[in-house]
Amino acid sequence: MNIKQFEVRLRPRPRGFHLITREILDVIGDDLSGMSHGLCHIFIQHTSAALAINENADPDVRHDFETHFNRMVPEDTSLYRHTLEGPDDMTSHIKSSILGHELTIPVSRGRLNMGIWQGVYLCEHRNAAGTRNLVVTLTGE
Amino acid sequence: MNIKQFEVRLRPRPRGFHLITREILDVIGDDLSGMSHGLCHIFIQHTSAALAINENADPDVRHDFETHFNRMVPEDTSLYRHTLEGPDDMTSHIKSSILGHELTIPVSRGRLNMGIWQGVYLCEHRNAAGTRNLVVTLTGE
Amino acid sequence: MNIKQFEVRLRPRPRGFHLITREILDVIGDDLSGMSHGLCHIFIQHTSAALAINENADPDVRHDFETHFNRMVPEDTSLYRHTLEGPDDMTSHIKSSILGHELTIPVSRGRLNMGIWQGVYLCEHRNAAGTRNLVVTLTGE
Repeated sequence: MNIKQFEVRLRPRPRGFHLITREILDVIGDDLSGMSHGLCHIFIQHTSAALAINENADPDVRHDFETHFNRMVPEDTSLYRHTLEGPDDMTSHIKSSILGHELTIPVSRGRLNMGIWQGVYLCEHRNAAGTRNLVVTLTGE
Repeated sequence: MNIKQFEVRLRPRPRGFHLITREILDVIGDDLSGMSHGLCHIFIQHTSAALAINENADPDVRHDFETHFNRMVPEDTSLYRHTLEGPDDMTSHIKSSILGHELTIPVSRGRLNMGIWQGVYLCEHRNAAGTRNLVVTLTGE
Repeated sequence: MNIKQFEVRLRPRPRGFHLITREILDVIGDDLSGMSHGLCHIFIQHTSAALAINENADPDVRHDFETHFNRMVPEDTSLYRHTLEGPDDMTSHIKSSILGHELTIPVSRGRLNMGIWQGVYLCEHRNAAGTRNLVVTLTGE
């Protein structure tokens, strides 16, 4: 088994849920295509944005994710102590740990072996976020 | 270190939370038992069902999970745009990303090294789901 | 690639969210520092406590996590069947599967390659919990 690690720098995105599968493949594609079986681990180095897997076709799904998370984690500063950076501060921490900061996806015959409808989401919870950094680790043979 | 990959096809289940540890072991058991230390990664190739680890004894726990998730992610189509396949469509996407589409479980001395009360759940969020496919990857030595 | 597995025994903590990065490093540090690239998998062998990654500085963040989860998963026994061990029984199962029982963190140049603000949380959901056991697996080279 071999291991290789990559950094992926995502350009700033507006608050919401965004498909980023393509940007990850642009960085790891050459190494991925030579791999028979393995795992691709993707980690986001932030505490106010998350990674998730979901539907890769209809943009309404990403819209509805944002709507739901805003209802489930309300932006009411009276509920929180940690509000220095505004009403989207603590809620971003909570949302990101509910969704999680990392994914592991199987690699089979040179490609990410997701289901046909699955894609990788950047879940951006801040109103004015900067660049987001990912560490991607490929293991396999 | 070695790596081996398996496909597990789960028969259609009714909506709810289901213990599937046994079905995974039926597929990987022979390879698992020969492994001293490693990791077992389990991935579900769908966007409306999830995987989770929780209590493996009392069926009431699985029932209460279903009750809670129905309350936390309400089936009210007025809240969502993506409703083409019915009121359980968008909610299934949301529930599955909250719970997650993959698990990694340590392997020690030939067995899944979970706690004594832990089991693997299929979290089926659709009213009329079909077969669900898992990709299981064993790494270790 | 090599693999090494460790057990980490966490002393009982009060209900709430606790930073435990230091305790994990105390166990794996010598092996971690010799690793160029790899992955660190951390697994909690319980169904009423979870692991998460979030902000490692302001204690108010951990306080607000507890507040939010108590609101999102209400301790109202009329909502649940599985209540034998008290009002914090079923809610602990639900909270732990929402947050998850495991983390995988990239290892780069001998250290956990988290963001500067990230730390590992033990999410203790029971009112009177005992010792919590972790299985930590390092893979890499």
